[in-house]
Amino acid sequence: MAISTEPYKGTRDFYPKDMQLRNWMFGKLSSAARSFGYLEYGGPMIESFELYAAKSGEELVNQQLYHFVDRGDRKVAVRPEMTPTMARLVAARIHELPRPIRLFSIPNLWRYERPQKGRLREHWQLNVDVLGGDALLAETELLTLAVELMRSFGGGERIQVRVNHRKLMDSFFKDTLGLTAEQALKVVKAIDAKDKVDEAKFVGWLSEAGVREDQVATLKRFFGSSLDSIAKEMPCEGANHLLELFKGLSESGVADQVAFDPTIMRGLDYYTGTVFEIYDTSPENRRAMFGGGRYDNLVGMFGGKESLSGVGFGMGDVSLQNFLETHNLVPKFEGEIDVFVSLPKAELRGLSEKVARDLRAGGLNVMTPLQVSGFGAQLKIANKHEAKVAVLFGDSELEKGELILKVLTTGEQLQVKTADTVKTVMGILGSKNS
Amino acid sequence: MAISTEPYKGTRDFYPKDMQLRNWMFGKLSSAARSFGYLEYGGPMIESFELYAAKSGEELVNQQLYHFVDRGDRKVAVRPEMTPTMARLVAARIHELPRPIRLFSIPNLWRYERPQKGRLREHWQLNVDVLGGDALLAETELLTLAVELMRSFGGGERIQVRVNHRKLMDSFFKDTLGLTAEQALKVVKAIDAKDKVDEAKFVGWLSEAGVREDQVATLKRFFGSSLDSIAKEMPCEGANHLLELFKGLSESGVADQVAFDPTIMRGLDYYTGTVFEIYDTSPENRRAMFGGGRYDNLVGMFGGKESLSGVGFGMGDVSLQNFLETHNLVPKFEGEIDVFVSLPKAELRGLSEKVARDLRAGGLNVMTPLQVSGFGAQLKIANKHEAKVAVLFGDSELEKGELILKVLTTGEQLQVKTADTVKTVMGILGSKNS
Repeated sequence: MAISTEPYKGTRDFYPKDMQLRNWMFGKLSSAARSFGYLEYGGPMIESFELYAAKSGEELVNQQLYHFVDRGDRKVAVRPEMTPTMARLVAARIHELPRPIRLFSIPNLWRYERPQKGRLREHWQLNVDVLGGDALLAETELLTLAVELMRSFGGGERIQVRVNHRKLMDSFFKDTLGLTAEQALKVVKAIDAKDKVDEAKFVGWLSEAGVREDQVATLKRFFGSSLDSIAKEMPCEGANHLLELFKGLSESGVADQVAFDPTIMRGLDYYTGTVFEIYDTSPENRRAMFGGGRYDNLVGMFGGKESLSGVGFGMGDVSLQNFLETHNLVPKFEGEIDVFVSLPKAELRGLSEKVARDLRAGGLNVMTPLQVSGFGAQLKIANKHEAKVAVLFGDSELEKGELILKVLTTGEQLQVKTADTVKTVMGILGSKNS
Repeated sequence: MAISTEPYKGTRDFYPKDMQLRNWMFGKLSSAARSFGYLEYGGPMIESFELYAAKSGEELVNQQLYHFVDRGDRKVAVRPEMTPTMARLVAARIHELPRPIRLFSIPNLWRYERPQKGRLREHWQLNVDVLGGDALLAETELLTLAVELMRSFGGGERIQVRVNHRKLMDSFFKDTLGLTAEQALKVVKAIDAKDKVDEAKFVGWLSEAGVREDQVATLKRFFGSSLDSIAKEMPCEGANHLLELFKGLSESGVADQVAFDPTIMRGLDYYTGTVFEIYDTSPENRRAMFGGGRYDNLVGMFGGKESLSGVGFGMGDVSLQNFLETHNLVPKFEGEIDVFVSLPKAELRGLSEKVARDLRAGGLNVMTPLQVSGFGAQLKIANKHEAKVAVLFGDSELEKGELILKVLTTGEQLQVKTADTVKTVMGILGSKNS
């Protein structure tokens, strides 16, 4: 029976055109991270199961993790997120890595999900983390990077970073609302999921959690308040931290793209302080595109004595690509073949190869047809491959030590001395690219 | 209990310095492939089990494949090689992809192996394939690319490509030696493994296969013969093909790095014609570094009507890195941080950020310390991160609208107008890099 040509459910194949887009996206993500001094790291695709069991949250481990037992009876997992790997690397060299530790990676990650828009089983994710340094300065930098990254794609004006602080919410739930820890947990879950349901359902969740009507009213008032008025009415560590954060963001030139939003929760994972999510401002796309926050001492699970906190975010390639396509921010890519060097006769192969070799030495991408054929057939191949310039050999030109260059995008044709080929082609491509 | 900081057995972590080396290697591999008109593709890390069961060989599937059943009861495998994925992609668009189809990829691959020098459970592998086109021209191109690729690392003189042809060996075993198909199979296996054992063991294998002494003598004489004399004494398709191949390699300027070697077999997988292996010429490294060959109609297993043959090779990152390190071909990499912008006082953060922003806009990698401290402490941070230039702010300079640039590699220090910072730093870095 024939084998299917479809990729495994929830995954993608990348043909050259898809790869060109992916390389462009990843190149810009890397450049943005590097421009802030972040260094790239990598880790294995398979890790021990226990690395995720410890901190990754029940839903992920019980329902979404790809795990199995290897031939040596080790329980292993295909990585569903990169943060545990990053924490492991940092913990292993905690005394050697210069602080602050700035790291980025663009790994592929696996989750067993029902494939739907924006969610696939295999996706790539930019992970950016900074460990050590002053918490406020580190968070300011990371949010600045998030905004600058979207600006580098031309999408800076079309996103908004929404920020909150876990400790502000703790104060509010406990001191202002008087909720029990258990109630607060339920309210957090309800708020976290509220974008996916309507108002009635949300209020229903609150009353199930035993939140009284007067408390719901206070909660709604709180959600409608500015950070300034909250800081005045209920001064606390979280509110003060956010005020300082906004001052820093203003110095960094990104304050216009960042807003306080007390509904931002980021699940219940390992976040302990500032949390944030990046939203598309267009109304069709109501879900957070990506997010992150501060985590305390993730390296602790490796048993070292030293505590080290960090802040990070993860941005998936699927939601980024959706955003870029929605806003027409993906450029039209040129063909990747610079020059096609023809082969009209077998006897000319030595010359043809010499020309191709010289062009390659000049840094150009050069293809040959891998078959002997006439002008017309050769040009057809060159055009199918979207080559930009074709090198053609004609008998009368060869007698004069010349060859023909045809600019395939314009149809323009010129004769050059064979020795001048590289220089002339570089000139043509240079003026095309400028 | 504390979780181990070790990576999973047979895998590697890539700290920034390791990643810098990997990015350099992969960058050069990609450039070489692109310079011959090969386009990058990618596929999922997990594929259906049946994709490998069909063609990948018993040892791989039964002993080395990572496979498991997913939550939806599908039998899946973590890819152990890239060729089946490439064949699947090609089969799915066989009428759309322009011919010849030139493809490359640098995937990570998984095999359950006992970790040893040159073999790990997770490794990366450059895969290069060309499908369609004249067989001889395609093979000539691929071998030329293999040589040029090693030349681009400065190792062109230190490798030798050894070439053989399956059909030449078939003629020899059947017509000249008079072996049965079963005997020939055993002899092929013995020859394939002969680099790993001594002469006595090899001859032992032959006699176990029922090869008579006079046949062993013929076999040894054959192995000592030149291609020219073989082609004269036993003219056949395989020998003629190789003679033509060498003519093409000479036109392509790589014949000096290629030799005929009748002991090259490339296992028993899917190769049907020309096969080759690339060897390090230094005597300490006797194993093949990488290899490949011609395969017939790999797309056939997907049930399409059209047949399409190809030729390809795979080169692992572990053996490449071993080779480069053995021959001192890995350069000393510079630090990745161009500029360190200091923060001596909290009030100066707005200016410090402005300077950092301008430098980033100029394409530079810029780090800030994430803590306020004096000159000495700041320079210590800058040096630990191997920054090349530090921007320092002194009170008397600030009054004049100036700042201090310190070239960290030389200790040289200069004062510049704040507005001239980017230009001056670019000048310093430019002259450093040239």
